[in-house]
Amino acid sequence: MLLAGIVLTLKGQPPTEQLTSFVVPFIGTEGAGNVFPGASLPFGMVKLGPDCADKSSNSGYVPGAVIHGFSHVHVSGTGGGPKYGNVLVMPFTGPFQPEEIQSQPANEQASPGYFAVDLTDYHIKAEMTVSRRVGFHRYTFGDNKERGILIDAGSMLGEHHCCGEAQQLIGSEINIVSDTLIQGYTRVRGGWNKGGEYTVFFSAVFDTPAKSYGTWKGNVASPEKASEYDSGEKTGAWFFFGNGSKKAIQAKVGISFISSGKALANLQHEVPGWDFDKVHQDAVQTWNKVLNTIHVEGASDDMKKVFYTAMYHAMLMPVDRTGENPKWHSDEPYYDDFYAIWDTFRATNPLLTLIQPDRERDIVRSLIDIYRYEGYMPDSRSGNQTGRTQGGSNCDMVVADAFLKGLKGIDYQTGYEAMVKDAEIPPGGNQQTDGRGGINEYIKLNYVPAEYEPKEKSPTLHTPKLYDRAGTRTVEYSANDWAIAQVAKGMGKEADYEKYRKRASNWANLWRSQVTDSGVNGFIWPKRRDGSWVEDFSTTKAGSWGNFFYEADSWEYSFYVPQDARALIDSCGGPETFVKRLDTFFTGPNYRVDNEPSFFTPCLYTYAGYQYKSSDRVRDIIQKHYTSAKDGIPGNDDSGSMSAWLVFNTVGFYPNAGQDVYLITAPHFHRAVLDLGGGKQLEVIASNLSETNRYIQSATLNGQPLNRAWFRHSEIANGGKLRFVMGPKPSDFGKEHLPPSLSDPE
Amino acid sequence: MLLAGIVLTLKGQPPTEQLTSFVVPFIGTEGAGNVFPGASLPFGMVKLGPDCADKSSNSGYVPGAVIHGFSHVHVSGTGGGPKYGNVLVMPFTGPFQPEEIQSQPANEQASPGYFAVDLTDYHIKAEMTVSRRVGFHRYTFGDNKERGILIDAGSMLGEHHCCGEAQQLIGSEINIVSDTLIQGYTRVRGGWNKGGEYTVFFSAVFDTPAKSYGTWKGNVASPEKASEYDSGEKTGAWFFFGNGSKKAIQAKVGISFISSGKALANLQHEVPGWDFDKVHQDAVQTWNKVLNTIHVEGASDDMKKVFYTAMYHAMLMPVDRTGENPKWHSDEPYYDDFYAIWDTFRATNPLLTLIQPDRERDIVRSLIDIYRYEGYMPDSRSGNQTGRTQGGSNCDMVVADAFLKGLKGIDYQTGYEAMVKDAEIPPGGNQQTDGRGGINEYIKLNYVPAEYEPKEKSPTLHTPKLYDRAGTRTVEYSANDWAIAQVAKGMGKEADYEKYRKRASNWANLWRSQVTDSGVNGFIWPKRRDGSWVEDFSTTKAGSWGNFFYEADSWEYSFYVPQDARALIDSCGGPETFVKRLDTFFTGPNYRVDNEPSFFTPCLYTYAGYQYKSSDRVRDIIQKHYTSAKDGIPGNDDSGSMSAWLVFNTVGFYPNAGQDVYLITAPHFHRAVLDLGGGKQLEVIASNLSETNRYIQSATLNGQPLNRAWFRHSEIANGGKLRFVMGPKPSDFGKEHLPPSLSDPE
Repeated sequence: MLLAGIVLTLKGQPPTEQLTSFVVPFIGTEGAGNVFPGASLPFGMVKLGPDCADKSSNSGYVPGAVIHGFSHVHVSGTGGGPKYGNVLVMPFTGPFQPEEIQSQPANEQASPGYFAVDLTDYHIKAEMTVSRRVGFHRYTFGDNKERGILIDAGSMLGEHHCCGEAQQLIGSEINIVSDTLIQGYTRVRGGWNKGGEYTVFFSAVFDTPAKSYGTWKGNVASPEKASEYDSGEKTGAWFFFGNGSKKAIQAKVGISFISSGKALANLQHEVPGWDFDKVHQDAVQTWNKVLNTIHVEGASDDMKKVFYTAMYHAMLMPVDRTGENPKWHSDEPYYDDFYAIWDTFRATNPLLTLIQPDRERDIVRSLIDIYRYEGYMPDSRSGNQTGRTQGGSNCDMVVADAFLKGLKGIDYQTGYEAMVKDAEIPPGGNQQTDGRGGINEYIKLNYVPAEYEPKEKSPTLHTPKLYDRAGTRTVEYSANDWAIAQVAKGMGKEADYEKYRKRASNWANLWRSQVTDSGVNGFIWPKRRDGSWVEDFSTTKAGSWGNFFYEADSWEYSFYVPQDARALIDSCGGPETFVKRLDTFFTGPNYRVDNEPSFFTPCLYTYAGYQYKSSDRVRDIIQKHYTSAKDGIPGNDDSGSMSAWLVFNTVGFYPNAGQDVYLITAPHFHRAVLDLGGGKQLEVIASNLSETNRYIQSATLNGQPLNRAWFRHSEIANGGKLRFVMGPKPSDFGKEHLPPSLSDPE
Repeated sequence: MLLAGIVLTLKGQPPTEQLTSFVVPFIGTEGAGNVFPGASLPFGMVKLGPDCADKSSNSGYVPGAVIHGFSHVHVSGTGGGPKYGNVLVMPFTGPFQPEEIQSQPANEQASPGYFAVDLTDYHIKAEMTVSRRVGFHRYTFGDNKERGILIDAGSMLGEHHCCGEAQQLIGSEINIVSDTLIQGYTRVRGGWNKGGEYTVFFSAVFDTPAKSYGTWKGNVASPEKASEYDSGEKTGAWFFFGNGSKKAIQAKVGISFISSGKALANLQHEVPGWDFDKVHQDAVQTWNKVLNTIHVEGASDDMKKVFYTAMYHAMLMPVDRTGENPKWHSDEPYYDDFYAIWDTFRATNPLLTLIQPDRERDIVRSLIDIYRYEGYMPDSRSGNQTGRTQGGSNCDMVVADAFLKGLKGIDYQTGYEAMVKDAEIPPGGNQQTDGRGGINEYIKLNYVPAEYEPKEKSPTLHTPKLYDRAGTRTVEYSANDWAIAQVAKGMGKEADYEKYRKRASNWANLWRSQVTDSGVNGFIWPKRRDGSWVEDFSTTKAGSWGNFFYEADSWEYSFYVPQDARALIDSCGGPETFVKRLDTFFTGPNYRVDNEPSFFTPCLYTYAGYQYKSSDRVRDIIQKHYTSAKDGIPGNDDSGSMSAWLVFNTVGFYPNAGQDVYLITAPHFHRAVLDLGGGKQLEVIASNLSETNRYIQSATLNGQPLNRAWFRHSEIANGGKLRFVMGPKPSDFGKEHLPPSLSDPE
C-alpha cells in the first residue's frame, strides 16, 4: 500500500525542468523595480553583484554604468536609503591608483547563481557565483599586463542619501594574513531603517599567491603594509599577481556577521575547492529545485520568463542568516532583511507557506525568536536591527496565516503572545520601530486620531508626530486585530476572540460617509481625538512618514478592509454601487499598480459576486504592467512582493493573507502543478483556456463541483486538483456562496 | 606679571604626595560594598582582577575564595546581575585539565594600578598592572614544573543570575597567531541592565614563546589546534612554556570593543615594552596625580585611608571608552558604564566638576553624543547599551549641574534638547530603558498615577506595569524639571523656564497630609488617575521594579524635594516640626544609610536653619558607617557614589546636585586644598577643629564674613578660601540667609 502510494505520487510529479533558463534577473533592473541582478542562492546571505555609478542605487547595480567592483551583501527591490554594499572586490590591471579603479561594463550576463561582465577598461572578464555565504570570483585577464585585485573593506552604498537614511561608516579593518588569505570587516550604521551597527566580516582567499601588496586607511596608501587596524576609517588592500601566463585568477570570499574566523569556516565548509563551474552548477541546481515547486504548462516562453523570474525574485529575501546572528545565540533559525513585512505579508509569505512550507516555518520561527529576545516581532528589519514599521503590525498577519494554514513546528503560544503585545503595549518614542504606534489612543478611541501629541511643542524640540500615519494605522490595526482574533479562536481563547473581533471593525470609525468624489460616497478620513473630522484633507492626499496615509491615498485605503469586505460593501451602498466604485477606481488615476496597498483590491469584486471582474482586472494589470523587459516590474519589487502577486494570480488564485482563504482570480496556464511538500501536489487545470476563453464557466475541486469563487487552504493542504472549465463569456461562477467576511451571520 | 602669577600659583600648591599609599582597594570588598579591588587606571577601560568562587560576584572578587583566573573588564560597587568578567587569563602548572584549573589564594595585595596574589595550589605569584586598555600580567613560578597559562575567551560573570539579569554567551573565538600572539573575543548579552550584545576583543602577547598549545571549544579540547572559530560556544587556549629556568612569564593583554586588531594597536601603543615595574609606576603616578587634587591636613592616617580610598573609588567609573565605541564614529568622547546616573548624579558628577572639570566635561559630552545617536541620554548604560532607568531622567541633573557651574566645552543647546526630550517624549514599551516612563500621564495629571495600564489584561500577556515606580518617578521628575527650568532660564528661554518651574512643584500632588506615622504628618502617597488615594499602602513600603517606590520608602522619598526644601518644610508644618521629623527619621529604622535616596537628607536641617544638626548627622553617619576595614562602606558603593558622598562631607560641604549650590556640612580636616584645574585652588580651613570643637562658630569666604551655611559655585569657581572657626557648641551659624529654594519669593 505504502509503496503503491509512493509510486503514484512520483508518477504524478512533473519532471524536474531546467527552469532556471527562464529566469531573467535583469527583469526589474530598469524602471522602478530596483531588483538585484547579481548572484545569490534562494534566500542567500551572500548577494554578489556590481556596485555602480555613485553607489546610490538600492541594489548596487545601475544598467550600463561604470562599475567600482563587486560587493557581497545586497537587498533586492527596495526603496529609500540603500543598505549594504559591503566588502567590495575589483580586478584591474596596471598600477594601483586609488579612487581611479573602475571600468565601463559590456556583455553583462545574469542567471540564477551567476553574474558576468566584461570590464572593458581593463580587458577583464569578471564572473561570479555563490554558495549561501561565499562569493566565488573568476577574473580572466585579457591583456598580458600586471594583474591586480583590490579588496575594499570600507565601501558601502548610499553614503550620501538624504533624510537621515544614509549609511554611515563606523569603522573597518583589513589584515593580509598570507599571500593568499585576507581577513577583515566593515562596520556600518544607518540606511533606510535608520538601523544601528552591523558588521560584515570576511575571509578572502586567492588561488594565486600575490606577489606584492599594500593597504590603505583613509587617504593614506601604504605599499607592503600588511594590516590596517580599525580606527574609524575606511581601509582596504591591493594585490598584484604579475603578468601571469595563467590568465584567470580566482578568489573566494566567505562572509559572516559573526567574525572573520566564522567567515573562513563558512568558506571552507561551503566551497572547499576551486571548481568555479561546479559551484555555479550547484547554485543552478538549488534554484531549479525551488523553481520546480511550480510547474506550468501551456505558456509561451515569454510568459514563462515573466513567471519564473517572478518566482526567482520572490525567493531572494528575507535572508537566511541562521548561525550568523551576532545579537543572541539560540537554536532557532535566524532571518534578516524583512524589508518590509508590510510588503511581503500580502503574497510572498502565503506563497512560501504553499510551496515552501519548511522555509516559511523557519521564517516564522525566526520572527518569534526576535520577539523573545527583543520584545517585539519586526515589521521591517535589516542589518540585524528592527525598524521601520510602515503601517500596522503585519507580522501578526504572517503568524496568523501560518497558524490558520496549519504550518507545523512553530511555537504558536509565544507567537500569540507576540501578537497580543503588538496589540496592547505602546512601542515608544519614535513610533517607527516596533509594534503599533499610537496604540494607547487606538485602544481608547477605537481609532488612531489624526493629531500631533504633545500639542504643546517646545521650540527646542523636534517633536515626533505621534499620530502620523493615523489612517494607515487604523485600517491596518483593524485587519491585524482580526488576525489575532482568528488565532485566539483557534486556540480556544474565546474572550480574546470576542475582544479582537470587535476591534477588527475599528476601520469603520474613520469611515466618513459624507465625503464624495467622482460620484463615489464614503471614504476613510482623518478624525481628531474629540471625534470631529478634519476638514482640510482630500481623497487624493497620499503621503509617507508623518502623514495621515502611508504611500497611498484614501481611494486606496478605503478599500483596505480584507477582514470584512461584506461590511465594506454595505458601507459603500451595496454590491452594485461597490462594483461601480471599483470600476471608477481601477480606471481612474488613484489606483497605483506600483505599490502594495491595492494588492488585494482586484479580489474585492469577487466579494460582491463578480468573480469575472476580478479576473478581468487581474489580467489587465498583468498584460499592461508585467513583461519580460528590463523594466517589466511596475514598481519597487519590494523583496519580491510584486513578483509573488504575479505568481499567485497567474496560477489562478490569490490569498487573503492572514486567513486560510484563497480567491480564485485569473488562471493563465492550461495546467499548473504546485509541489506542497511532503509528496503533496496541487494541480490547477484550466480546460479550454485561450485568449478568448478566459472566463471561468465552472469549477471542480478534488472532483466535486466547486460552486464558489474561493476555497480554504484546508481543502488543498493535503494536495488536490482544481479544475476550471473556461469559456469566452462571463458566467455566474462565484455569484453565490460569497467568500467569508467578519460580519457574516454566524 | 605672567611669570609672577605662575610662581605664586606654584608656591600656593601643596607638594605632590604619594597619596596612593593611603588607598586600600580592599575597603568595600566585604559587606555590601561590592567594590572591585583589582588593577585599574582612573576611569580605566581595563579593570584587571580575579574572578572567584562561582563567578557570581559583581566585582568578580570574593575575599579568600578560590580563583579561576584574572579577567580584564569589571565594574565596581554594583548590585543586581553582574556584567563583564571577560577574557580570563590563568597561570598553572602541570597537565592541562579543563574545569580543574583554579587555586586557593594567599597574600592578596592591592594598590592603585596593582594587584597580586599567591596561587597556592601552583606556587605561583600572580601580579598584574594596567594601562588604560592593557592588562599586564607577571607570573612567577615557584616550582620547577611545567609552566602553563590559559586564556579563556568564554568566561564571564553572573551566568546563572536570576530575574532575567544573567549574562548570556553569544559566542567567542580564539586564534593562536604565533607562539607569542593570541587574538580573539567574547560576545555576551544580558546582565543587570538586560543589555544587548557587547564584544570584548583581545590581543595577548607573551614574553616567552609557547612550546606547545591547544585550544578548546565547548567541552572538546584539541591539542595542537591553533584556532577555534565562533560557533556560539565557549572557546579558549592553553600554552605550555616548559620547566623554564627563567621563573617569571609575562603576558600583556590589549582589550578593545572594536576589534582584536584595535586591541593589538592599543597594546603596542600603550605598553610597547616589557617593563612591568615601569607600567606599574606609571599607573601609580597617574593615580597620585588625580588623588592630589585634594590635599588634606590634620587627619589621622586611618582617616586618610578612608578619604583617599573614597576618592579612588569615586574615580573608577564611568569608563573612558573614547575610540572604543562600536556603535558609531564621532569626534566626541565616549564613556560607558554609567551604572547608574541615578546613583552618581548626586555626588560623583559634582565632585568631578569641582576637581576634574575636564573629565566631567568629557563625560557630559559623551552623554549628549549618546542622545545624538540613540535619541535619549542614558540613566544607566553598560556594555554599550542604555538601560535600566531607575527613577527620573537624572542625566538632566548632570547637564544642569555642568551648565550652572559654567563647565566649558559642552554643546548645551543639544544638551538642553536632550533634557526636553526626556521631559516630553514617552520612551516606549518597557519603560525601563530611556527617558521618563509614564511621562504622558505625568504631563496630563501632573503626577504619575499608581495604576497599571492597560487595565484590561490579556491572560496571555505579561503586561508591563507602565506606572511602576510612580512615586519615585513623580518626585524625581519634579526635581528634573527644576534642572531643566534653570538651564532654560540661563539660556533666556523664559517660556520654558516658567513651564518647567511650574512642573517642578508636581511632587506636592502626591503629598497626602492626612497620613500620620510616628507622630509625623504628611507623606508622598500613591494616587490613582482619577485623583483618589490608594488606601492599601504604608509609609514603610519600599520596593524595586514594579513598585510605587524604587529602593526606598515614603519616609525617605517624602524628603526628596531638593529643588524646594522651603515648600517641603511648609508642607511638614514649619521648621520646628520639620526638624523633629528629620530627628525621628534619622534615629528610626527608615533611614537607610546604604542607598542613595537619602544622600541629601542630612542637608535639609540647614534649610530649616539648623546647620549644626546637618553637621552632627553627617559626622554621626561617617563615624558609624565608614571605616578603613574591608566592610567599611555601608552599602553597594554604586560606582563610587557612597565614596563621593564621603569625600564632599569630610571636606566640609555637599552639593545640591543640579544647582550651583553647596551646603556647608561637617569639615573633618584642619585644612583641605582642592585643585580646581587651570591653576585655581579652593582652600578650606577649619580653625580649632577637634573632636569636641566640631561646630562652626563663624566662617569667611575669600576673606569676607560668610553669614550663611551655603555658597554658590560661582563664588569659588576661580579659586577661593573658605575658613571656618570651630568651637565646642552649636552656634547661630546658618540661622539666617537660608539656602535657596524654588518657592523663595523672587
